Amino acid sequence: MKIENDQNVEQQNVEMEGAAGCRVRLLLGEKKGAPNFAMRQFEVAPGGHTPKHKHPYEHEIYVLEGAGVAVEGDVEHPIGPGDVLLVTPDEVHQFKNPGESVLRFLCLIPNDAAQKSVTVVPECGLDQ
Amino acid sequence: MKIENDQNVEQQNVEMEGAAGCRVRLLLGEKKGAPNFAMRQFEVAPGGHTPKHKHPYEHEIYVLEGAGVAVEGDVEHPIGPGDVLLVTPDEVHQFKNPGESVLRFLCLIPNDAAQKSVTVVPECGLDQ
Repeated sequence: MKIENDQNVEQQNVEMEGAAGCRVRLLLGEKKGAPNFAMRQFEVAPGGHTPKHKHPYEHEIYVLEGAGVAVEGDVEHPIGPGDVLLVTPDEVHQFKNPGESVLRFLCLIPNDAAQKSVTVVPECGLDQ
Repeated sequence: MKIENDQNVEQQNVEMEGAAGCRVRLLLGEKKGAPNFAMRQFEVAPGGHTPKHKHPYEHEIYVLEGAGVAVEGDVEHPIGPGDVLLVTPDEVHQFKNPGESVLRFLCLIPNDAAQKSVTVVPECGLDQ
């Protein structure tokens, strides 16, 4: 059994194309002995956003803190604490923080996601 | 994309042998379209506990609320909000709530866990 508080896990800037004001903690994953899936914790600063993109693997998300927006294609959904999201494979998605405090959520992916490609989607939409 | 608040997900009593004062919400899983792993949210009432058992699949756990105890074999570890736990396959484990408020945590398992067997361990220890 491994036990670690999230605050003791190093926080890294998310350097992916299309990300702004995002940091991540790799809470659990293959390198920490997790056999099948990885648990990451993201923080999006006020005004920040994750990349708008798609990929052939799912996200399972649990919102811990803050008031954000989940972008599904061109549709925006408000999200907040206790919200549970499933982003299915190949769905275009993005998470934004239009609020005044940090948006913090867990986002889990299968371990084999690292071997799969990510397609960035222009902010103005798929067809432009 | 599916979005649902945890409070809107039905809460069920945990009827497993060895469980006391435990309820669960099945937030995400195969029936809700999750391809690989399932997210459940457990609540353990004050004085309650999960079964002491082992099984050939992992748990990835994130503690949301409360003050609990994670039992690893015969060793007890205090746990609280923000703690991240990995229970590896075939580890004997249990979660107890000796506190005065609810212990609430996310616990994720692979989808194929339903096809695998669980071995209950007597409370007095493996050898007795």
